[in-house]
Amino acid sequence: MTTQEKKPGNLRCSDEHSIHLSNPNITEMKNILYHFNCGTKTHDLQAMFGDVKFVCVEGSPAQIKAFISYLGEELRLAPPGMDRANICEGTDFYAMYKIGPVLSVSHGMGVSSIGIMLHELIKLLYKAKCSNVVVIHIGVCGGIGLESGSEVLTRKARDSCFKPKFEQIVLGKCIVQSTELSDDLNQEIMACAKKMNEFNTITGNTMCPLDFYEGQVRLDGAFRSYTDEDKQEFLQAAYDAGIRNIEVESSIFAPMCGASGIKAAVVSATLLNPLREDQVSSSREVLVEYQKKPQKLVGYFIKRSLGGKA
Amino acid sequence: MTTQEKKPGNLRCSDEHSIHLSNPNITEMKNILYHFNCGTKTHDLQAMFGDVKFVCVEGSPAQIKAFISYLGEELRLAPPGMDRANICEGTDFYAMYKIGPVLSVSHGMGVSSIGIMLHELIKLLYKAKCSNVVVIHIGVCGGIGLESGSEVLTRKARDSCFKPKFEQIVLGKCIVQSTELSDDLNQEIMACAKKMNEFNTITGNTMCPLDFYEGQVRLDGAFRSYTDEDKQEFLQAAYDAGIRNIEVESSIFAPMCGASGIKAAVVSATLLNPLREDQVSSSREVLVEYQKKPQKLVGYFIKRSLGGKA
Repeated sequence: MTTQEKKPGNLRCSDEHSIHLSNPNITEMKNILYHFNCGTKTHDLQAMFGDVKFVCVEGSPAQIKAFISYLGEELRLAPPGMDRANICEGTDFYAMYKIGPVLSVSHGMGVSSIGIMLHELIKLLYKAKCSNVVVIHIGVCGGIGLESGSEVLTRKARDSCFKPKFEQIVLGKCIVQSTELSDDLNQEIMACAKKMNEFNTITGNTMCPLDFYEGQVRLDGAFRSYTDEDKQEFLQAAYDAGIRNIEVESSIFAPMCGASGIKAAVVSATLLNPLREDQVSSSREVLVEYQKKPQKLVGYFIKRSLGGKA
Repeated sequence: MTTQEKKPGNLRCSDEHSIHLSNPNITEMKNILYHFNCGTKTHDLQAMFGDVKFVCVEGSPAQIKAFISYLGEELRLAPPGMDRANICEGTDFYAMYKIGPVLSVSHGMGVSSIGIMLHELIKLLYKAKCSNVVVIHIGVCGGIGLESGSEVLTRKARDSCFKPKFEQIVLGKCIVQSTELSDDLNQEIMACAKKMNEFNTITGNTMCPLDFYEGQVRLDGAFRSYTDEDKQEFLQAAYDAGIRNIEVESSIFAPMCGASGIKAAVVSATLLNPLREDQVSSSREVLVEYQKKPQKLVGYFIKRSLGGKA
């Protein structure tokens, strides 16, 4: 199998801040966004989404609904408790909500699931002629050597061998892609975290294995071929390589946003420290608080970016 | 990076038809099935699931709910339209329903998502002391060189280079696993398909790339680095290698079931022929009919296996 680096080809963009596509077909074709249950044949995407400036993606449909509701109150765009319609109604692949310039989309779990969503999101933003869009991945994770409830802004996603690359097989060839995220955006979000002064927030590298159990050397999966000592040694080596957390989507999120010319960040709250434990031991109430942390930080960042007093 | 074949180690089983686990921790530890929102601390898994003989897994929560409802009527275990409780209520990672000896679980999209679900399902079946369990993956797919609405029983899952293997990185090492499915089970299901005589059903190999767009050489993704001719040539080569359909979970489903000593099958209905089209062009009604086909075939198989007249 041959290996090659991915280079942007046939970029389509009207100005430097619009969405880039490297597919000449998309401009001409009527497009069905199959997993969003919408498309250019049936929906006026520009009228629906043309004003979008921030997209926040998170695994769970319930979480993104809660986020949009929280943001509606924060931005004073909706009264408390107002219910919003799921734009992807009619399919349960993903859920999508919008309030003002903020779109929020669920992505399920893992690289395959978020990859499908991102292909369709990028086409949607392109067809809607959006510009200057920021996409932020919000989620929870394991934090290596960090207290539970800390927040990590990802500098680079790393693979299971700690390398900052994502490999994808296309036409039987291995395409290698860079997994760097926006330094500028991380700095802006970190400035917000400092201003808020509510959470322990750091920047670090994020390991992104294919799976949650063996890929993260957990001891509580159905299978394992390693000892507790192997696990400790591996996680310590990850820490020494600058890795501060583990989650399962950033490795494809970073290159797909990068290839589209979209500024992107990954903001994660740590639920546990895998050097100490594999099973989440905090109470449900504490976990809900942890889950809300990245939403609060990103909400603060959006409010400030829109000129509101946060 | 070194590569090694996965061999079953520390198998735990009470007899040859029970669930195998290659993790010595699991028998001793209290287990939280985090993504199912249940566990041994809070639930009596043996009382809840000890009688399970068939597990049907499918991507969508709505589809598995519909399947269990259909099966309830077919097996005469529930009146038409009876609503059943989601056993995973309180989380939206997965949904789970049970009727008699049949459990149905949703798995989202892609190898990462189904992999997490399978770890927890295998632990659940083990802790419930289930024996002689059959697990069937039901879904939709693209069918190479097949009319839309055909059904494919997977012989072996193939990777994006057409090889019958699944590679997983654990502790920085590449573990290679076999992706063979049960011949016996395929023959039993095929016998049912012949008896029903409603669908075009074949056995074939299934390609399982990491993603839905570039991995399946679609022309309608946000990115593509190949021409229509490249695509046709690649799909023709896949056809020549005995590949008859493409979907995105079988490559991890086959080895995980195999390593647990579980008889498993993958039954998929084709929504389109990617040699001809990338975008699903059939009407919503026709697609719903296609989606129901594997449910009907698997329902018929379960009914016959339970001794009912199908």
